[in-house]
Amino acid sequence: MKQFLLILLLAGTLITNGYSQYSSGDSVFIASIYKNELTQGQGYNWLKVLCLNIGNRISGSSNLDRADTYMKRLMDSLKFDKVWLQQCQVPHWVRGDKEIGKVVRSNTGAFPIEIAALGNTNGTGPKGISAEVLRVSSLQELMNMTEAQVKGKIVFFDKHFETEHINTFEGYGHTVSARSRGPEAAMKKGAVAALVRSVSTNHDNKPHSGATRFEDYTQTIPSFAIGVLSADKLTDALSKGSVTIYLKSNSKYLGLTNGYNVIGEITGAKFPDEVIVTSGHLDSWDVGQGAHDDGTGCIHAIESVEVLRRLGYKPQRTLRVVLFVNEENGTAGAKKYAEFAKSENKKHILAIESDAGGHAPTGFAWEATKEKAGMYSDRIHSWKNYWDQYGYSLYQGESGVDVGYLQSLGTCLMGLLPESQRYFDYHHSPNDTFDKVNARELHLGTAAIASVIYLVDKYGWE
Amino acid sequence: MKQFLLILLLAGTLITNGYSQYSSGDSVFIASIYKNELTQGQGYNWLKVLCLNIGNRISGSSNLDRADTYMKRLMDSLKFDKVWLQQCQVPHWVRGDKEIGKVVRSNTGAFPIEIAALGNTNGTGPKGISAEVLRVSSLQELMNMTEAQVKGKIVFFDKHFETEHINTFEGYGHTVSARSRGPEAAMKKGAVAALVRSVSTNHDNKPHSGATRFEDYTQTIPSFAIGVLSADKLTDALSKGSVTIYLKSNSKYLGLTNGYNVIGEITGAKFPDEVIVTSGHLDSWDVGQGAHDDGTGCIHAIESVEVLRRLGYKPQRTLRVVLFVNEENGTAGAKKYAEFAKSENKKHILAIESDAGGHAPTGFAWEATKEKAGMYSDRIHSWKNYWDQYGYSLYQGESGVDVGYLQSLGTCLMGLLPESQRYFDYHHSPNDTFDKVNARELHLGTAAIASVIYLVDKYGWE
Repeated sequence: MKQFLLILLLAGTLITNGYSQYSSGDSVFIASIYKNELTQGQGYNWLKVLCLNIGNRISGSSNLDRADTYMKRLMDSLKFDKVWLQQCQVPHWVRGDKEIGKVVRSNTGAFPIEIAALGNTNGTGPKGISAEVLRVSSLQELMNMTEAQVKGKIVFFDKHFETEHINTFEGYGHTVSARSRGPEAAMKKGAVAALVRSVSTNHDNKPHSGATRFEDYTQTIPSFAIGVLSADKLTDALSKGSVTIYLKSNSKYLGLTNGYNVIGEITGAKFPDEVIVTSGHLDSWDVGQGAHDDGTGCIHAIESVEVLRRLGYKPQRTLRVVLFVNEENGTAGAKKYAEFAKSENKKHILAIESDAGGHAPTGFAWEATKEKAGMYSDRIHSWKNYWDQYGYSLYQGESGVDVGYLQSLGTCLMGLLPESQRYFDYHHSPNDTFDKVNARELHLGTAAIASVIYLVDKYGWE
Repeated sequence: MKQFLLILLLAGTLITNGYSQYSSGDSVFIASIYKNELTQGQGYNWLKVLCLNIGNRISGSSNLDRADTYMKRLMDSLKFDKVWLQQCQVPHWVRGDKEIGKVVRSNTGAFPIEIAALGNTNGTGPKGISAEVLRVSSLQELMNMTEAQVKGKIVFFDKHFETEHINTFEGYGHTVSARSRGPEAAMKKGAVAALVRSVSTNHDNKPHSGATRFEDYTQTIPSFAIGVLSADKLTDALSKGSVTIYLKSNSKYLGLTNGYNVIGEITGAKFPDEVIVTSGHLDSWDVGQGAHDDGTGCIHAIESVEVLRRLGYKPQRTLRVVLFVNEENGTAGAKKYAEFAKSENKKHILAIESDAGGHAPTGFAWEATKEKAGMYSDRIHSWKNYWDQYGYSLYQGESGVDVGYLQSLGTCLMGLLPESQRYFDYHHSPNDTFDKVNARELHLGTAAIASVIYLVDKYGWE
């Protein structure tokens, strides 16, 4: 009882000093979110089912259908006011048989290489292809070449992950263009296939797949990620002379099929037409178990609402969980949801995304249109003290791929920033499995998101 | 060249605003430490040898002798000015055969339990012992009991890890007394043996060993950590009636033997008699590989000096690496070093310890005598801006067990604070292996320590 009185007392205290607006009562409530998650969090168990019972779930796969059903039932069982599937058209792409890659002629002999087809690209056909390798250290190096130099070659994009950045997402950003833009550029110059050094911080031989852009996915060249150790071996062989590679794969882009965003909401008691979105994406690549990318984000989204309910908090605004489909190879789900959001007679005031893994949270990035950024910035920084004790950083920057489509609505977009060191060891590869997720780290991420939802729900922005 | 001029220019800028003293040149140099570690750090390779080629290394073991030799040679090969072994007397304790534990009578049947002897305690003898179990949920509950209640029983300390604290070291602090003080208290009340629920955040069945205090280690009762899942099963059985357990072990305290601190130093160019210590402990428990506890700390210590050398930095003060012996079951190495430090004609101005794992750094704790604390506090906070961009917290608090013995010298004591969520999943158990360490996280810890050494070496405290 004593403690209860103390909380009431603190709840009444509002300290305003310069830029900071701070209520001890809110601080106590936020602490209770963390404590509840660390002692009663269920998300780790939900993730276990998603990863171990269902597994990876690329757009168009039966695994993704099963995941849709699981997540819908989960939100139903948690007594969300409304749970529904939102249909859209997603690419249907299949990897087919395990890809075969071999150096067949080089001055260091013949040896196998580990490869994995890049998303939405088509295979070599049943006979495979053999060609000489042309190594470039970056997309730019290829762009500077003539068609004569590239024609008939297998272009090997040997761009190393930029490891010197403390935040690995920064390193990824500086590295990924070789994968996302390289194969199409190689095709335009006459290459017969493309190999891309895995965009990874890991030193193993698992290829890290991912998206690559082609204007028309029925017209691609065979394009592959190559394991880091295989890439090292290939580089070594190339340093000693010309190299010929044989590649065989039967991946196939099959056009569009149905996909679904899974959406659940708790209707706001006071402002039902103001919507707070908390989100992740339910699709994954077709390797590993889609644990950190982005099973953890989906868990964060659902439990960030659920933990508030467990604590007896009644939201004033509508809290909506959106589990996007097809973030990995098309963002059809995000586009569909944004279209819906624009058409419905509601106002999206906040959209948080968790798509950077389930490691311990370190803060948030946020962004908005120019007109709104000042208002959000003032308010977010007035809340800074709530997160100081958790050591969080808050900065204006990229929020997330899926919520990004809501920017034109004037919504405040936020992205959770988990500790980034391990993420690209797992990302898009067979390494991205449930055992890489730590329960406490996952639950702390949920608490971090719930703390933002709580403040925005309670105070709004204006 | 342009960049070089810019650095020179920045180096000349000193911004003083209120409490903060900040030089852009220092900030640039510190950034170069991080970059160097992330791209050229060697510590992960050294740790691999320590963990995989040598393995766990309890005081008095031949593995620890091998580790001493490896570390001495490593510092010799890195051209430290002076490398030496500092002898002391450490407890010699052996676990003997794998311990056997069985519930032999209970209302849920008979079943095996996973146990591991606690450090320096003696076994049951070849016949083992059987007795009824007395469960207590805390040390305090035992203290409130009469001798008649305890006599002849196996006391089971069923204290759960306090998971609600965000920093797991806080949870550990609230939980560990059952292990560190429980068995002796049980013996004094007539118990025949003690079982302690593993002090762990993990939900597996690996027992987490550790130290437990007895006034005289030739006079102990058999004392064991019990795996978390076994503890759960035992609790369940006890909820349904009385339980009898059979225990067999032949661990043995063998008295004192030789042990060695491994020490290396670079002599200061300007103030050779002012010493900056960077440290970890080289001994570990006799399970797992002593990776996070405290192989990573030893690597941090050595490479925090080495990275400065790689960058061409010439220390003004003497930088000394101390790899303590016997942190785990006696702290004989720390006592010996403190005695030496008091006797030598030098001044210890800073002693940093890394003994909280090799996860991503989150800041530092520091402590000192009352007279000195104000001075250190002012200076450390004047440097705060250097670490703000890394998201670090700095606070006055416990630094480390080993450097703690230097407090009476007026030394500023610091402890690295790595992200704590996973540490007690591994701590003192077979889980503490090399594969749990991430190279980038390890190297960032090294950079964090090196940044402190750099500032204290360059500016001193006064």
